[in-house]
Amino acid sequence: MPRSFTTGNGHLQVSQNLRFNCQAPKGNDANQLLQTACERYKKVLSQPDGLLPEARTKEAAAGQLNTVLVIVKKDNTKLDDKTDESYDLRVSQNGEAIITANSVFGAFRGLETFAQLVRRTGKESYLPGVPLQIQDSPSYAHRGLMLDTARTYFSVDDIKRQLNAMAVAKMNVLHWHIVDSQSFPLVSEVHPELSEKGAYSPDMIYTKRDVQGIIQYARERGIRVIPEFDTPAHTYAWSLSHPDLLVCGKNEPWDKVAAEPPSGQLDPTNPGSIKLVGELLREQATWFTDPYMHVGGDEVNQKCYTDQPHIAQHMQEKGINATQLIAGFAQQLHNITRESGKVPVTWEEALLEYKVDMGKDTIVQVWTTADHVKEVVKKDLRAIVSPANFWYLDCGQGGWVNTAKGFNSWCDPFKSWQHIYTYDPLTNLTGTGNDDKSHPNILGGEVALWTEKTDSLILDMKLWPRAAAAGEVLWSGRRDINGNERTTVNAQPRIFKLRRRLVQHGLRPDLISMLWCELHPGGCELEL
Amino acid sequence: MPRSFTTGNGHLQVSQNLRFNCQAPKGNDANQLLQTACERYKKVLSQPDGLLPEARTKEAAAGQLNTVLVIVKKDNTKLDDKTDESYDLRVSQNGEAIITANSVFGAFRGLETFAQLVRRTGKESYLPGVPLQIQDSPSYAHRGLMLDTARTYFSVDDIKRQLNAMAVAKMNVLHWHIVDSQSFPLVSEVHPELSEKGAYSPDMIYTKRDVQGIIQYARERGIRVIPEFDTPAHTYAWSLSHPDLLVCGKNEPWDKVAAEPPSGQLDPTNPGSIKLVGELLREQATWFTDPYMHVGGDEVNQKCYTDQPHIAQHMQEKGINATQLIAGFAQQLHNITRESGKVPVTWEEALLEYKVDMGKDTIVQVWTTADHVKEVVKKDLRAIVSPANFWYLDCGQGGWVNTAKGFNSWCDPFKSWQHIYTYDPLTNLTGTGNDDKSHPNILGGEVALWTEKTDSLILDMKLWPRAAAAGEVLWSGRRDINGNERTTVNAQPRIFKLRRRLVQHGLRPDLISMLWCELHPGGCELEL
Repeated sequence: MPRSFTTGNGHLQVSQNLRFNCQAPKGNDANQLLQTACERYKKVLSQPDGLLPEARTKEAAAGQLNTVLVIVKKDNTKLDDKTDESYDLRVSQNGEAIITANSVFGAFRGLETFAQLVRRTGKESYLPGVPLQIQDSPSYAHRGLMLDTARTYFSVDDIKRQLNAMAVAKMNVLHWHIVDSQSFPLVSEVHPELSEKGAYSPDMIYTKRDVQGIIQYARERGIRVIPEFDTPAHTYAWSLSHPDLLVCGKNEPWDKVAAEPPSGQLDPTNPGSIKLVGELLREQATWFTDPYMHVGGDEVNQKCYTDQPHIAQHMQEKGINATQLIAGFAQQLHNITRESGKVPVTWEEALLEYKVDMGKDTIVQVWTTADHVKEVVKKDLRAIVSPANFWYLDCGQGGWVNTAKGFNSWCDPFKSWQHIYTYDPLTNLTGTGNDDKSHPNILGGEVALWTEKTDSLILDMKLWPRAAAAGEVLWSGRRDINGNERTTVNAQPRIFKLRRRLVQHGLRPDLISMLWCELHPGGCELEL
Repeated sequence: MPRSFTTGNGHLQVSQNLRFNCQAPKGNDANQLLQTACERYKKVLSQPDGLLPEARTKEAAAGQLNTVLVIVKKDNTKLDDKTDESYDLRVSQNGEAIITANSVFGAFRGLETFAQLVRRTGKESYLPGVPLQIQDSPSYAHRGLMLDTARTYFSVDDIKRQLNAMAVAKMNVLHWHIVDSQSFPLVSEVHPELSEKGAYSPDMIYTKRDVQGIIQYARERGIRVIPEFDTPAHTYAWSLSHPDLLVCGKNEPWDKVAAEPPSGQLDPTNPGSIKLVGELLREQATWFTDPYMHVGGDEVNQKCYTDQPHIAQHMQEKGINATQLIAGFAQQLHNITRESGKVPVTWEEALLEYKVDMGKDTIVQVWTTADHVKEVVKKDLRAIVSPANFWYLDCGQGGWVNTAKGFNSWCDPFKSWQHIYTYDPLTNLTGTGNDDKSHPNILGGEVALWTEKTDSLILDMKLWPRAAAAGEVLWSGRRDINGNERTTVNAQPRIFKLRRRLVQHGLRPDLISMLWCELHPGGCELEL
């Protein structure tokens, strides 16, 4: 839903030979990016939109649309949390469509909006609601999707398919949780042994070329790729090539020392641990182009460390406890990240549990509960919100642990698109009135998919269309221009349509409600 | 899991030219059915099984398997609740596989078991565990899957794909909930107007030829097809061609008079209602070959009737209340069903709520809660169990009604395969000791998928592999031969494998746990 718009009730027939006139400054790769995007949207516009037939306005066609003029004003193609994604779209009665944007990435958003407005039945294309004026820009700079490729490996094509969908939902950050305890699919060139021993199989890997291909594909859609290298917990797969660096690995009952199997944490008292992680981070800082680098830091089990005699002795000698030990490791990671030219991102525990004394540049991702967002803001740090009780897409679909009793997921119930849609990242923030639309410390948010129970066959339906419910909150804000909360009743027709667009893009998304409800707007409502 | 078996530790190489010698009496279509099945399994056995590599026994191959001998003793090809599905499978060290069965349908089960035992890596085929003896037969005669093709239309191919999966899970009843309020896809020849007006679209229909094709395809896999024509509620789509027969249709707020939109019930006081339903039932009794016919009868809303002045007057004149009105309509339906040569099946409300005075042949399907099973048995009627709190596959995946608050499904939480697996159809039955393996009044059960939130793209994953968890309970019983409850810990490796078999059959089933857990048996267990 755009920030502001006015529409008329005429419509234009869209020419079968719709011409794109796409103009960007020659500096950087702005023009190249724009031409690629225009070619892509030209193709999209030549194909049916996959939507249901709609009642047409009775008014005769106001004319024909032959040309889309796209004007990018600046050659800045830096893709980061300051990127200007605003755009202006105007279509006049006389049949000219003009998209104006400060950056090429803003132009991408305008092209997507334009493509979504043109109805393409397969027999004809037309643009209703003319004359049309849209001024649009996102409420939040960070509109992300976290995908875990370690519990389950996903092919490069699987990932690109999600990037296509993200562009439709105007989401702009892929948080790539690339390695974890279960597998290490990334083929490092300085430490190739990590994936040689740690990948699920020699076919289930990401080479440097794969990584760079994904980054470029994302960039062509205005999407940042932020990699995560989660340590010191969630590292069992690292130990397959570096057994000496891991403690409390699989020999112990996993549930005593870890959140899930296989257990094992890097030993912070072994200098080899920070050396290995540091070397990997420094290498990856050159592969990944985004200014952010996520260093993980979640779910570090203290008992795992205190149980080890040599670690206990180390702590005693240094006069520190387990949280201080963990904090020290995290601080080293943050420093290495900064030295590599990146902004460190960390899961919330580093701040709220291990009390790492963080630089003010550090970004904290909140996940355990939405209530913790205000704790981060209080400490005047910037937050990314992805609370499990609202935005974890893997919840509520049954337990995956093999147990006599634990049949439910740990974060029941299922997060329906409606539940996702009603989460406001600004909830309970001191210094944010209920009618405020932003907070300087809230960069934005992410929906997250941990893949204990998801593989390629069902990936699309686990992510979509629910991710787009968060996408709209992050682009448009929970409240409209008049300060009123947006409702799921109003959003539902947009989600129905978005799902059909995704099917047209080759995805297999979840169904939010049966065809009868889609065919009969208002017919499936209920006031409780 | 077969009823009883013994295995050795040798293995046989399976010849690339494995020969099937399939012998059945010439009476009926026994021999034809058997040859078709043998051809099908020959093809299955020529393809990889899709399973993960397994540790091979070190023992040298005991020999080669060149021939499968299948012997069917009787020519009875009646497929009903008395069908003998038992089989005997023996493979000796000298390399002969012999499947013996009383009926061709028992032979199908033996062929499926044999196919599941032969490991096919793509490079080689071998049969481990030789010498092998299996005596097998099902605990329950009725092992069903209910699919709703009215809320969402599924193609004939979608349905056949499920029949393939059912054969893998040894499930033998497709309960086809073919029409409902949302659409009427069945093209009746005596009342073609029902689908002309009531189908979602002219493409979303089942012709007589489609129906017969599905029945034949199912029969070739030993699967019965029981159609359901649900009245007098759940009939809005009927009214699109017969508006005079419906009361409390869409003009009213649906939630006051119906369980879901669109509202509307056939008017039992209008003689046209029973005439129309009766004519349809009589016709369909000739299309569908199964001895059972399901006449629905669930969720009839009394207020819908009492609110209508002409119905209120009718009840007053007859001296009956709304439940008696509903019971009278149901009794007429049951009688028509019997007159058409079929056994009536009804949802539980007809017995427990409307107190229909039922013939002892009537079969009652329990759905609202497992606690109601004993109520049916007390009245000495036969039951099919499909309790929503255990075996409804659509639960716990978010609400589909568009409302400001009702974001969860009515039957939260999600029914995990483990939860499904732990349901025992014999729970709390008077006259059944805990170690009994059957009860004469429990025909079996069904998992049910109502399709408010499922379409073709995600059908497979909503059904599978969870349906197979019920499939094993119904084939093997909740307890083993020693009376011990089967555990999810023991069942998990079988579900993992079954899922891979289904992928090999072209399905897209759900993932029950990540690859790491499948690769490390016991590694993801937890004692709570």
